[in-house]
Amino acid sequence: MYCVIMAGGSGTRFWPRSREERSKQFLTIFEKVSLMESTLKRYSAMVPWKDMYIVTKKNQKEELEKHRLDVPTENLIYEPFGKNTAPCIGLSALIVQKRDPDGVMVVSPSDHLIQAKKHFKKTILAGVRLAEEKDGMVTIGIKPERPSTGYGYIQVHQDIGPVDGMKAFSIKTFAEKPNLATAKRFLKSGDFYWNSGIFIFRVSCFLKEVKTHLPDLFDGLQEIRKHMGKPNYEDVLQNVYQQIPSISIDYGIMEKTRHVYLIRGDFGWNDLGSWDQVYKLSQKDGDGNVVVGDAVMVDVKNSYVYNSKGVVAVLGLDDVVVVHEGGATLVCRRDRAEEVKLIVERLKRKKFAKYR
Amino acid sequence: MYCVIMAGGSGTRFWPRSREERSKQFLTIFEKVSLMESTLKRYSAMVPWKDMYIVTKKNQKEELEKHRLDVPTENLIYEPFGKNTAPCIGLSALIVQKRDPDGVMVVSPSDHLIQAKKHFKKTILAGVRLAEEKDGMVTIGIKPERPSTGYGYIQVHQDIGPVDGMKAFSIKTFAEKPNLATAKRFLKSGDFYWNSGIFIFRVSCFLKEVKTHLPDLFDGLQEIRKHMGKPNYEDVLQNVYQQIPSISIDYGIMEKTRHVYLIRGDFGWNDLGSWDQVYKLSQKDGDGNVVVGDAVMVDVKNSYVYNSKGVVAVLGLDDVVVVHEGGATLVCRRDRAEEVKLIVERLKRKKFAKYR
Repeated sequence: MYCVIMAGGSGTRFWPRSREERSKQFLTIFEKVSLMESTLKRYSAMVPWKDMYIVTKKNQKEELEKHRLDVPTENLIYEPFGKNTAPCIGLSALIVQKRDPDGVMVVSPSDHLIQAKKHFKKTILAGVRLAEEKDGMVTIGIKPERPSTGYGYIQVHQDIGPVDGMKAFSIKTFAEKPNLATAKRFLKSGDFYWNSGIFIFRVSCFLKEVKTHLPDLFDGLQEIRKHMGKPNYEDVLQNVYQQIPSISIDYGIMEKTRHVYLIRGDFGWNDLGSWDQVYKLSQKDGDGNVVVGDAVMVDVKNSYVYNSKGVVAVLGLDDVVVVHEGGATLVCRRDRAEEVKLIVERLKRKKFAKYR
Repeated sequence: MYCVIMAGGSGTRFWPRSREERSKQFLTIFEKVSLMESTLKRYSAMVPWKDMYIVTKKNQKEELEKHRLDVPTENLIYEPFGKNTAPCIGLSALIVQKRDPDGVMVVSPSDHLIQAKKHFKKTILAGVRLAEEKDGMVTIGIKPERPSTGYGYIQVHQDIGPVDGMKAFSIKTFAEKPNLATAKRFLKSGDFYWNSGIFIFRVSCFLKEVKTHLPDLFDGLQEIRKHMGKPNYEDVLQNVYQQIPSISIDYGIMEKTRHVYLIRGDFGWNDLGSWDQVYKLSQKDGDGNVVVGDAVMVDVKNSYVYNSKGVVAVLGLDDVVVVHEGGATLVCRRDRAEEVKLIVERLKRKKFAKYR
């Protein structure tokens, strides 16, 4: 069993705390350690450090070095740039394949909040068992708590479990982020789950699926594999990345293959998609505010304030987000926090480059 | 004729740009120079620099030195601390008295916006003429444009003008800041003027009025006068200031004396009482926003943003004020900008001392 922690991300959702070269997983949000470190600790309860890998974009190398804990340097995998999850997992699979062609890979995001750590471990181990038994692609589905329009959904087909005490299903279909009416219907039907972004499979199984459903990517990976350990490896990697399609494992493989299964997860999961979600998950004071760092609040309610330096003062406003870090300040309506990416787009102007 | 520019102020209204040791008059708001420098330039069209004085609190000395233009160092008058306008003008009067006991003093705030500079000069010179002719206390009253609740009002009695082409009146009464209904009544009646805070009088006349209406202050001033130029002057000044009452010239003298007159001023006057007023007087962009410094605005309307360093981004909010300077950030509803002083009060906590 090998864990591959994906640490990509463009650093837009949590701007100005997250930046191009320091995306969400490197932030300390709820715990004393970063989301990345929390994730690594969670998996270190399942596999030894030497069997853990982290895959990220080259430009995040500096941050990653600070947050890798005991993951060996040779297990840090750098993409020249981001091409979504399928190439990222593909590249990682090549590296695991070299050590253990029949190994099982657990591929996981690095920036989610998971509250019930023991239950999480049980779920992942059940997923590993299922991936081995079926020689198929396994995903972890989260029992939805509300009709969220921010997540992708997975509809299950038949109950094939339990596996080590965990509910398991075959899968009928993958659904993109729905509108509210559809999300409500999904919730009511009872057979839809949130797509957690965690995937489990044998390396050999995954590469077979790539060959079938993403032949261009497969050819690219073969090219990379041939040059591993050679002096021109970096150049080949760069070249192949420029040519391969940018596609997610969800759309590229999971939706298309029939060998796909779901283990039900129920471990207090949240993907922390915006400052608003961080607000909602945080402990509030008597005015419904969450204040991190030095701030003065006068007649403010239901707001989130994060300040890393100096002082922030808010007066007479409700339902706002104010975040000040690294010379940049965000002020926004809390219910529009997901649109922070629009700000980051506007920072493409040259004079703002250092705040991207 | 001598001009005494009052440069006190507690630096609360324009926090975080204004601070305890750098109050409003030292800020650059509309022009390329500070409000203080604008004020000095305005009066330098009427009197030579050697006849101009500036009176301020000791703790603003450092800022004042940067903004005094050609006012001679020996004409900078320092109060040990603020005791409102009557003591401040009293101390200045002693110093002018030494040079010219029959001189006429024009006492003026340093932090107001005045748009019609030529008309302003004509008005002041008419005031000087009236003060000499009547040997009385003259104030400049501003024809109100709207029922403001932020200013004191002066009700005129009889037309005694014109004086050098300017309307002049005797005064019936001074009124404190009214509520909106009263302000509307004042505006309708036509015989109420805004109190500009500019006063003109012979030094001898003023000191006589102090003796009559503020005998404690008069005694204190005599004590100070006796020690002028002596080694223990500073100690005496400090002692007297600790004992004299804190009172404005309006309440202490102007309201009480019968020798009081008004020259009508109509020169585009604004006391710049809050960020909201600065917003209202500034040129707006197509969204009704005023942006000074580096900022990114996404779906923001009718807002004021001032940023001296880094970048400020605002998203999805209307009618807000965001000001970032010197490590401090203000975020407030624009129509509550006058309450910024509540924030400054909260900064009395020790850890915030450097942001006061």
